[in-house]
Amino acid sequence: MIDSGLSNTPEPPYYAVIFTSQRTPGDAGYGAMAERMAELAAQQPGYLGMESARSADGVGITVSYWKDENAIRHWKRQAEHLAAQQQGRKQWYSAYDIRVARVERAYEFIAPLEHLKPAFREMKG
Amino acid sequence: MIDSGLSNTPEPPYYAVIFTSQRTPGDAGYGAMAERMAELAAQQPGYLGMESARSADGVGITVSYWKDENAIRHWKRQAEHLAAQQQGRKQWYSAYDIRVARVERAYEFIAPLEHLKPAFREMKG
Repeated sequence: MIDSGLSNTPEPPYYAVIFTSQRTPGDAGYGAMAERMAELAAQQPGYLGMESARSADGVGITVSYWKDENAIRHWKRQAEHLAAQQQGRKQWYSAYDIRVARVERAYEFIAPLEHLKPAFREMKG
Repeated sequence: MIDSGLSNTPEPPYYAVIFTSQRTPGDAGYGAMAERMAELAAQQPGYLGMESARSADGVGITVSYWKDENAIRHWKRQAEHLAAQQQGRKQWYSAYDIRVARVERAYEFIAPLEHLKPAFREMKG
């Protein structure tokens, strides 16, 4: 779903890496790194998509989707990513959890157009 | 990890429900419902934890953790939760994805205290 910030993944099974984190205060290069890592991840073999959200209280969740465990291992060891991981432990995160999970089934909901764009409908009507 | 907003889950394997969503504009009772659902989920059999984040652009991710697939099915069919799901499709979400995944391995990082509280260290020193 290109417009919504949600990932358009294939039929399961595939893998998800659930990365939940608590940020330390301040940016300290974090925003630029996060953007670069999203760009870099998307170039890796077996990448299927990524979704990310961070609340004002500093709790963030990034879920990335991968074809198989090999793709995850490859991304984990990518050189620039390794440097970011190290800096993350040193500076950006007060705590994080990484969970590797096999996606077994998935459902999608997209609201009908009339739900989303009443003004547009009125124009057409 | 009580202090960080991250869940303290047991050793894998267990299950994760990854709920990624795009909100419609405005609250319209959403905040109260989300709070109530978090409270209600925590009372269900097999509940292991929940993490949630929503960015300013409306993309949200909630990951809930469950002992097994039965616990997920039970929660999916809980009456008050069913009503919230229906209202969600009617009003709160323009799109969402639900992915059910088996967590196979997990890693945790907690920053050493001196990383987090330099001011406190100085006071002690």
